[in-house]
Amino acid sequence: MPAAADEGMWLVNKPPLGTLQSKYGFAPTADFMEHMQKSAVRFNTGGSGSLVSADGLVMTNHHVGSDMLAKLSTPERDLLETGFYAKDRNKELKCPDLELNVLWTIEDVTDRVKAAGANLDPAAANTARRKMMATIEQEGKDKSSLDCQVVTLYQGGQYQMYSYKRFTDVRLVFAPEQQIAFFGGDADNFEFPRFNLDCCFFRIYENDKALKPQHFLAWSGGSKEGDLALVFGHPGRTSRQYTTDHLKFVRDFSTPQRLLSMMMREVQLQTFNGRSEEQERIGKDDLFGVANGRKSMTGQIAGLLDPALMAKKSEDEAKLKAFASSKSVSAEDPWAMIAAAQEINKTMMVRRGAVQGAMGGELAGSALTLVRLADELPKPSTERLREYRETALPSVYLNLYSDAPIYDVMETDRTASGLQYMAMMLGADDPLVVSVLGGKSPRDRAAELVSGTALKSVAERKRLSEGGIEAVSASNDPMIQYVKLLDGESRRLRKIAEDEVEAKERQGYAAIAALKFEAFGDSVYPDATFTLRMSFGPITGLTEDGKKVEPYTNFAGLYERSTDRNGRPPFDLPKRWADKKGKIDLKTPFNFLCSADIIGGNSGSPVVNTKGEVIGLIFDGNIHSLVGNFVYDERMNRAVAVDSRAIIEAMRKLYDAKDLAAEIVGKK
Amino acid sequence: MPAAADEGMWLVNKPPLGTLQSKYGFAPTADFMEHMQKSAVRFNTGGSGSLVSADGLVMTNHHVGSDMLAKLSTPERDLLETGFYAKDRNKELKCPDLELNVLWTIEDVTDRVKAAGANLDPAAANTARRKMMATIEQEGKDKSSLDCQVVTLYQGGQYQMYSYKRFTDVRLVFAPEQQIAFFGGDADNFEFPRFNLDCCFFRIYENDKALKPQHFLAWSGGSKEGDLALVFGHPGRTSRQYTTDHLKFVRDFSTPQRLLSMMMREVQLQTFNGRSEEQERIGKDDLFGVANGRKSMTGQIAGLLDPALMAKKSEDEAKLKAFASSKSVSAEDPWAMIAAAQEINKTMMVRRGAVQGAMGGELAGSALTLVRLADELPKPSTERLREYRETALPSVYLNLYSDAPIYDVMETDRTASGLQYMAMMLGADDPLVVSVLGGKSPRDRAAELVSGTALKSVAERKRLSEGGIEAVSASNDPMIQYVKLLDGESRRLRKIAEDEVEAKERQGYAAIAALKFEAFGDSVYPDATFTLRMSFGPITGLTEDGKKVEPYTNFAGLYERSTDRNGRPPFDLPKRWADKKGKIDLKTPFNFLCSADIIGGNSGSPVVNTKGEVIGLIFDGNIHSLVGNFVYDERMNRAVAVDSRAIIEAMRKLYDAKDLAAEIVGKK
Repeated sequence: MPAAADEGMWLVNKPPLGTLQSKYGFAPTADFMEHMQKSAVRFNTGGSGSLVSADGLVMTNHHVGSDMLAKLSTPERDLLETGFYAKDRNKELKCPDLELNVLWTIEDVTDRVKAAGANLDPAAANTARRKMMATIEQEGKDKSSLDCQVVTLYQGGQYQMYSYKRFTDVRLVFAPEQQIAFFGGDADNFEFPRFNLDCCFFRIYENDKALKPQHFLAWSGGSKEGDLALVFGHPGRTSRQYTTDHLKFVRDFSTPQRLLSMMMREVQLQTFNGRSEEQERIGKDDLFGVANGRKSMTGQIAGLLDPALMAKKSEDEAKLKAFASSKSVSAEDPWAMIAAAQEINKTMMVRRGAVQGAMGGELAGSALTLVRLADELPKPSTERLREYRETALPSVYLNLYSDAPIYDVMETDRTASGLQYMAMMLGADDPLVVSVLGGKSPRDRAAELVSGTALKSVAERKRLSEGGIEAVSASNDPMIQYVKLLDGESRRLRKIAEDEVEAKERQGYAAIAALKFEAFGDSVYPDATFTLRMSFGPITGLTEDGKKVEPYTNFAGLYERSTDRNGRPPFDLPKRWADKKGKIDLKTPFNFLCSADIIGGNSGSPVVNTKGEVIGLIFDGNIHSLVGNFVYDERMNRAVAVDSRAIIEAMRKLYDAKDLAAEIVGKK
Repeated sequence: MPAAADEGMWLVNKPPLGTLQSKYGFAPTADFMEHMQKSAVRFNTGGSGSLVSADGLVMTNHHVGSDMLAKLSTPERDLLETGFYAKDRNKELKCPDLELNVLWTIEDVTDRVKAAGANLDPAAANTARRKMMATIEQEGKDKSSLDCQVVTLYQGGQYQMYSYKRFTDVRLVFAPEQQIAFFGGDADNFEFPRFNLDCCFFRIYENDKALKPQHFLAWSGGSKEGDLALVFGHPGRTSRQYTTDHLKFVRDFSTPQRLLSMMMREVQLQTFNGRSEEQERIGKDDLFGVANGRKSMTGQIAGLLDPALMAKKSEDEAKLKAFASSKSVSAEDPWAMIAAAQEINKTMMVRRGAVQGAMGGELAGSALTLVRLADELPKPSTERLREYRETALPSVYLNLYSDAPIYDVMETDRTASGLQYMAMMLGADDPLVVSVLGGKSPRDRAAELVSGTALKSVAERKRLSEGGIEAVSASNDPMIQYVKLLDGESRRLRKIAEDEVEAKERQGYAAIAALKFEAFGDSVYPDATFTLRMSFGPITGLTEDGKKVEPYTNFAGLYERSTDRNGRPPFDLPKRWADKKGKIDLKTPFNFLCSADIIGGNSGSPVVNTKGEVIGLIFDGNIHSLVGNFVYDERMNRAVAVDSRAIIEAMRKLYDAKDLAAEIVGKK
C-alpha cells in the first residue's frame, strides 16, 4: 500500500525526497519546489497550466483552452476551426469568465477542523467541520487578501488551507487549429503513438498590463529517453484509497449509471452537431468533452471489471484490517461505516443526478445561482451552502455575469435532454416530473423555458442578483420558476448526501487514514483533489501486446498516420500543415511518454527536467492510465506530452509566430 | 378508436374497402389484392421488397440489402463503398444466408388455437396454444409444402396461418454506393427534404435459373402530388392496442433501458470503426443499424413523454372500459391482468436482456443454436422451443451453415460489450457474472472465447449439429462451454416471460380485442406483426413549424444540399454523382412523401398507384412517424419514398445500367 516507485501524486509541501534521491539521485531544494509551485497555474475550468514568460504568458492544452476558444467564437470567426494568433498585444482576446489561480501558501489546519467535529455524531460533525472551514478561510482572506480554500485530504484524514493569487483578466494569445490539437480524434484519444499539437497560450493581465510574475518556467533545449520528467499540475480526482465496498459501489452502480447517461448525451450531441454547420460550431467543444469523459470512464469500468484489480485491493485491505485489529481502533468499524454510506447513496444517486441534470443548461444554471444567492446571502457565511460562502462569491459572480454567448438551440437541447433523462429515470408519473414538465413534452417545455426567459441578458441577471430575495421572489421569469420547482428536491437530496453519505465517509476514511499513517508514515499520498501535486518518472516507452512502443513520435509520423488513414477526418491535416510540410524539420520530436502518475485535471501541466526547465506539456494519458483512478501500474501507465521542441518548431515554421516563440525561449 | 382516415396497417385479406371507396373512390378487386400480395416479398433480415420483373428481379432498400452487401464484401472489395452492378447474370453474387418469402395463402385458425387454451390457467393455456400452432403449421406444411406460420393478431385476439413460398437462392444484382443511398447520414435520417437513392436489387433463382414469377409489379410513368399511394409491406411491430399501464411500462421502463443500452453500443461501434479503415468497413453496417434504431427509439420515447399522447390513450381506454362495464365481460379484469404482467416483466427484463446480450455475437449465437438443437431435437416438435419446431428448422440451418465472413475483431468487441453490459447491470459479484467471466475481465474473456473457438468453421458447425447431443456434450469448445453457462438462466427467464408475462397479456388482450370487435366491427386493424399489410394515403407534404414542406425533392436539391454542407461527410457525393452532374436531368423527382401509415419493417415496400404500378420505394418515415409505434397522426405522419423515376434515371445515366432499367420498365 505504500506508493511504489513512480506512483504518486505528491503534495508539493511533502515531496517523496527519499524515492527521488534513491531512485533518481535527484534532491529538489525548497527553492526549487517553491519556484515550481509559484509557476504552476490552475484553470477554474478544470485544467492545469504554467507561467512560461516574464510577461505573464501561460501555457496550457488546447483542450483546456477550448472552452474559451468556443466562447470567443462567432458564426463568422470559428477559432476552433481556424486557430488564433495575436501578433500584437492589443489583438489578444479577453476571456469572458476564465479564472486562473496560483498557489501561494499552504497551512495545515487539521487540528482546528477536526476539533470542530469532535464528540458529535457524523452528520453534526460534518456540518461543524464545514462551518469551521468557512471560518478559517475567511480569517485567511482577511489576513492575506489571497483566495483561501481549505482542502480535505485523505478523504478526511487531513485538512490544509491553500491560499491562491487569483487572476481574472486573462487573454488569448495563441491556439492552433483543433484539427491538429486533436488529430486522430476520439479514435486516437488515450492511445499512443500520438501526433497532437495540444497547446494553447494565454496571457495574464493586471490593471490592464501584462503580469510580471515573480516566478515563471525557463524553456529547455529538449529531452531524451530515460530523462527524469517532473510534472506539476492539478489532478482532479482519484479513488485509490477507497475501500473495496466503496469500489464495488463505483463498479456496479455509480459508474454504470454515469457512463450510460454520458453515452446518451454523446449521441444527442452528435445529432445536434449534425444538423447544420452552425450547430456543429456551437456543439463541438461540448461533444469533445463528453466523448473524452466517456472514453475515460469506459477505461475505468474496464479496470474495475478486471478481477485482478479487485483481488489486489482486497488483499491490501485485509492487511490493513489485520493491522487495525492489532491496534485498539475507534469503536465503530470504519469499513462498515463506509459501506453503509454507499447503501444510502444507492437509494438516491440516480434521483439526485436526474434533478441536477435537469438544471444543466447555462440558463437554468444562472437561474439556480440567482435563486440560491437570494436564499443564502441573508444567512451568515458559515451557515450557507458551501459554494456561497463569502470567500467563494467572487467566483460565483464571475460566472453569473459572464458575457459568454448563450445559444438558444443548445440551451433548448440541453434542457430537453435533462428533462428527458429525468422522466426516463424517475418515470413520467413521478410528481416532480409531472410538475416540472407542466403538461408538456420535454422538448416543448425546454423550448418554452428558453424562449421565455430574460436571463440571456447579463443586465437582467445583475438586476435580479442585486435585487436579492425581493427581486427573485417577484420574478415571473419562467426559468426562475422552473428551478424553484426543482430546488427543494435538490436541497433535500444534497442534505442526505452530506449528512448520511459524506459524513459517514469522512469519519470512516479519517480513521483509515490514521491507520495508514501509523503503518506507513509519510509514504502515503492523498487521493487527488484538484490541488497542486508533483508526479515524476522517466521518459520511457512500454511493451504492449508483446510489441515495444517507443517513447517519442515526430512530425514525419504525423504525415504517415494521415496518409495511412486516407486523410479522412479525424486524420485530415490543417491546410498549413499540408502546404508547408517541406518547410519543417520532420525529425522534430512531437509527443512523448513518461511514467509520471497523472489523471484528468493534469491536462496542461508542464513537464520539466531536474533543472525546472520545460521539456513538455502533458495532454493525455495512455489507455492503461485510465484505471489510474483506482490503481497505478508502473509497467503500463504512461502520461502523454507534447514535446517542447514541437511547439517552438510549429510556431516558427507554420504559424508565423516567431515573436511568441522568442518570448517563450527567452531570446529576442 | 376505430382507424381514422389514412391510418391503418390493414390485413390484405381484409382491406378497408369502405374508406378506400368513400375517400378515394378506389375499389380494389380481389384480383388486384392477390396480385399485390403475390408480388410482395418479405426479407428474413427484417425488411420488405417486391418482385419487379418477369425474371425474378426483387426491389428493396439499400439499407435492407446492406447486411448482404457487407457479407459479400472483402478487404479488397467493399460493396458498401463502391456499389455494385452485375452486367451479366453470371456476375450476380449469391447471398450466403438470405431468405425471401412470398405470401401465398391465408387461413383463419382462431377457433382451433383458442379452443386449445380454453378452460386452462393463463400459463397452461399459452403453452397449449403454442403447441396447437406448431401442430397446425406442420399439417399445413404436409399438405401444401409451403412454409406455414401461424400469426398471432390483435395480441391474441385472432390467429391466422400464413403460408409462404420460400426462396433461398438470392443473388445481388445492383446497389448504389452507401454514400448516396444514405446521403445525409444520421443527421438527415427520419427528416425531410431527403435525397437518397436507397434502393438495391436482387434476383431470385430456382434450380439455378432466374425465377419466372406468376406475379410481379409493372413500372409506372411516375406520380404527382395528390395521387393515392398504396403501400404493400411488412411493418414489424406496433403497440397501438396497448393499455395505458402497458404503455407506461414501455415509457418508464423498457424503452429507457433499451435506449441506453443501444446508445452504449452505438458509442462502442463508433470507437471500433474509428480504429482503422478495415474495422470501419467491417463495422459500418452494424453502426448504421444501431444508430437507426436509436433515432427511432428516441422519437418513440419523445412521443410517450408527450402528455397529450397519454391523455388521448387514457380517454380512449376510459370509453372502452365504459363500454365493457355495460356488457358482462370475463370474470377477470383484462386491464388489471395486463398491468400485472408488466409488474412481473419489471423484475426480470434487465436481467433477461443482459443474458441475451452476452450471447449477441455470431459465434455465441451459433453456439447457442447448436446447444439448443441438441437439447430440442430429441423432443416432439410441439414440445420444443418455438423456433426449433420442425417447420422452422430450414431457416435455423440456413443461418447456422451460412458461410458469411466472421471477423475476430468484431466478435471480440461484441462479446466483450455484452459481458461488460451484463456486469454493469447485474453487478460484477452476481454469481452468473462471476461464472461466465471465469476470473477474467470482459475483454480478456471475450478474446479468449473468440480465439479459442472452432465455430468459425462451417464444417465444425455441421459436425456438431449432425452429431447431436452426443457431439455437443463431448465438445470442449470454449464458446459452447460459455453458452452452456448462460443457457440455463436464459431458459429460466424465458419461461417466466412466457408463462407469467406473455400468457397474461394474451388473455387480457384477447378479451379487449373481443370488446373492440363488438364495439367497432371491422374498422379495427391489428398491431403490426411483420406480416403483409396494406397502407395508403395521398402523396402530400405537410406543414411543420408553420412552414409548408413540399412532397417532392429532385436531383437539383441533392447538389444544393451537398454544397450547403460544404460537401463534408455525410453530405459528400460519390464521385460519379459529382462528375456526371451535367449528364442527368436535374428536375428528376428524387424522394417524395405520402401519408401512408408505415413503420420499421416496411423498409423496401413498393409504393404503387391504383393500377398497381410502381411509383416509388418506401425507405423511411419522417420524424413525426416515429411515434407511430403508438399513434398515427394524419396531419404530420409521413412515409418517405424513392421516386421510381429517380431509380431509372440514375441507372441509365450514372450507373451504366441501361439493361437493368429496361428489364424493370419492361421494354428492351
